[in-house]
Amino acid sequence: MRILSSVEPDFPERWARICARGSEEDEAGVREAAARIVADVRSRGDAALLEHTRRLDGWQPAGAGALALGPGEFARAWRGLPAPARKALSVAARRIEAFHQRETDAVVPLYRDPLGARLGQVSRPLARVGLYVPGGTARYPSSVLMMAIPARVAGVKTVVAVSPADRATGEVDAWTLAACHVSGVSRLFKIGGAQAIAALAFGTPTVPAVDKICGPGNAYVAAAKRLVFGHVDIDMIAGPSEVLVLADASARPAEAAADLLAQAEHDPRAVAVLVATTERTARQVLAEAERQLASLPRADVARRSLEERGAAVIARNVAEAVRLADEFAPEHLVVLAKGASGIVPKLSRAGAVFLGSRTPEAVGDYVAGPSHVLPTAGTARFDSPLSVATFRRRMSVVEMSPRALAALAPAVEALTAAEGLEGHARAVRVRLAAPPGGATRSARRGGRARRRRP
Amino acid sequence: MRILSSVEPDFPERWARICARGSEEDEAGVREAAARIVADVRSRGDAALLEHTRRLDGWQPAGAGALALGPGEFARAWRGLPAPARKALSVAARRIEAFHQRETDAVVPLYRDPLGARLGQVSRPLARVGLYVPGGTARYPSSVLMMAIPARVAGVKTVVAVSPADRATGEVDAWTLAACHVSGVSRLFKIGGAQAIAALAFGTPTVPAVDKICGPGNAYVAAAKRLVFGHVDIDMIAGPSEVLVLADASARPAEAAADLLAQAEHDPRAVAVLVATTERTARQVLAEAERQLASLPRADVARRSLEERGAAVIARNVAEAVRLADEFAPEHLVVLAKGASGIVPKLSRAGAVFLGSRTPEAVGDYVAGPSHVLPTAGTARFDSPLSVATFRRRMSVVEMSPRALAALAPAVEALTAAEGLEGHARAVRVRLAAPPGGATRSARRGGRARRRRP
Repeated sequence: MRILSSVEPDFPERWARICARGSEEDEAGVREAAARIVADVRSRGDAALLEHTRRLDGWQPAGAGALALGPGEFARAWRGLPAPARKALSVAARRIEAFHQRETDAVVPLYRDPLGARLGQVSRPLARVGLYVPGGTARYPSSVLMMAIPARVAGVKTVVAVSPADRATGEVDAWTLAACHVSGVSRLFKIGGAQAIAALAFGTPTVPAVDKICGPGNAYVAAAKRLVFGHVDIDMIAGPSEVLVLADASARPAEAAADLLAQAEHDPRAVAVLVATTERTARQVLAEAERQLASLPRADVARRSLEERGAAVIARNVAEAVRLADEFAPEHLVVLAKGASGIVPKLSRAGAVFLGSRTPEAVGDYVAGPSHVLPTAGTARFDSPLSVATFRRRMSVVEMSPRALAALAPAVEALTAAEGLEGHARAVRVRLAAPPGGATRSARRGGRARRRRP
Repeated sequence: MRILSSVEPDFPERWARICARGSEEDEAGVREAAARIVADVRSRGDAALLEHTRRLDGWQPAGAGALALGPGEFARAWRGLPAPARKALSVAARRIEAFHQRETDAVVPLYRDPLGARLGQVSRPLARVGLYVPGGTARYPSSVLMMAIPARVAGVKTVVAVSPADRATGEVDAWTLAACHVSGVSRLFKIGGAQAIAALAFGTPTVPAVDKICGPGNAYVAAAKRLVFGHVDIDMIAGPSEVLVLADASARPAEAAADLLAQAEHDPRAVAVLVATTERTARQVLAEAERQLASLPRADVARRSLEERGAAVIARNVAEAVRLADEFAPEHLVVLAKGASGIVPKLSRAGAVFLGSRTPEAVGDYVAGPSHVLPTAGTARFDSPLSVATFRRRMSVVEMSPRALAALAPAVEALTAAEGLEGHARAVRVRLAAPPGGATRSARRGGRARRRRP
């Protein structure tokens, strides 16, 4: 892991390169393959979905009906798990729900303005959403909870999940199905890749078309999500997971190191960055990381991540460390420093902030409460954590009064004239010429003379 | 304009085709040309920006400095406008600001849970945003107000606009600059097309890189926005403007017709749909539209829109009309029916709803208050109006307590075991082994024995 000091003359340039990690763009070959699959599923529906699943996922579904699992299968999987597993899922589900139920809506409460117009912005749940859950040999029950529960709290009626089945057995693992049970997923389809994204975007007789697709996947999934964006909404294009650990001299090196490794063990492309305020702290943390790596089951993955993508930076002081962290805009920001919570007001560009010695990032992955689906690759400059708001939309509501319409007509006239849209002005004038109220056409005869504005 | 009745046997199919209008996908030629321009501006910066501006916009900027306008030019343009024009811009600006200042934030107010953990989600403004304002011979001062004012209310520090200059003069018109003055735009760059999007996404020495790009543009702008999506956020890919007018027997045909024409005059690709509850109303509205077309300056545009994209639907009753409107998910929904405001709770998929006889859609375009930047092409199924929320992001905050960490550790252990991420479990265990608080490393010696969960 490289050590950089912010006082070195070439630091700005080296730091800029570290910050510039990007979500990789789609490779042309991947994009073309994904585009062919998307077009095929869009035009041929279930038949194409079955063919691509057989070809790419390696198991042999008997027919499209064999792709769908529902509440019966979810409940069976739930009952089959040992009690501590059920307990863990319940604890996580309850905490995620409790957190997201406190989320406020971005609305404009309906009000009447001084001219008597009624104005506002109301919020509504999306009707149907689709969640992509990576599968195959891996399992991510926590991702089901972290997406499905905020969707349910938002009021989404139909929450479907897709997840590729195990190649050998054609099954989706029991943890994932139990997570569907506890978080109220409507149905799970045993499909993955670009074909799953296409099915969710355009619908097939078996898979319902949804309004929004969330969740991370491989390169084909990412390419397919970009391709269908606009037909449906997508949450984001997820990059590799990442953490920035900000450590001052009071930080325990073992804790900082453990948080770096917990990120690095995800993926060789995961990014773990340490920003320490003293060289001593930086060296202690790196030494601890070496020590902990010795016995880590996924040490190979973690070591590659640290060597190829990791960095340790020595900042002059906490203020500079905070500025660097905010510039980096990490998915996860762990603050191991005195007065950690006082640092929050100075931060605006992290996915989630984990404050103090008692808050390993791993609790955020499972049980803290806020969804662990967070912006990566520097997109925390503009993206937000997956939340209830992810699954709701707003709608503006306008009801003019006769007085408001008359008072605002001159401004509309002037602006429509500037923009050359006479039809817009006429739509106002035709109302000023008629009496207010739900009058029928014949009532117009009694209306006052048509008024034209200069 | 076609008239369809919902009782006809082929209605569902025909209606589905009307609803399926899409934002057009990028043509391959457009996408490739945009990609070349984006790559060129990204690698060569100002030099490429100048070259493409000279080649595509037709005027000859002396250098990159000649592309930038600032508060001085904005104030000069403002002072040069006649008083009624300044008044109209002020009225619109004040109303847009008053509306968006009432917008609530999607946050989770910080709270302490029963285990003593502190949790919440805070909201922050984006740092820099870029607004695309179509230009050339047309001018859209209202679009400047409708984007820049919500951005300012959101707390965005740097709001830059881009707009192509007039080919002949190299100038941007005074209304647009005056709108920049009244809405607090930081700078305007006289650039357009894919080169402007690339400059905003990646930055050049002259144009600052932004975090989000908003605003509609031509096909090259749309293609470039898709290409840079992920490096920066984009608001949406805007399709042609559209209206659905819902009219019962109480509606005045002249008002319904005027609202259809106000939409159709924008663009031959604009979509104007009437849903009436009686055939008589439908026929009266169409007759009125013909009559009004006779004297409309942009009649050619409006007529093409109505003939090629328009439709009139006869629904059985108001309930069915409301269902059809919601299915269509229009950018603008005009409700000319008795008890119009009672219909709002039944709607969830419109950009903005205009209620009753006194509320022409045109007031929403200029002065009602809510931003007129709205989801088109059916994306109101999932997209929201441009708002303060468009320019803010959320950040989760987690601070565990010693008790919370200990209580939740078993659930983390179980879930990390299920997902095969031992490093995550260790990041929790290393804390349980050490005393809480900002203790230094040496203080650990006094900590209790390392605790392992089963």
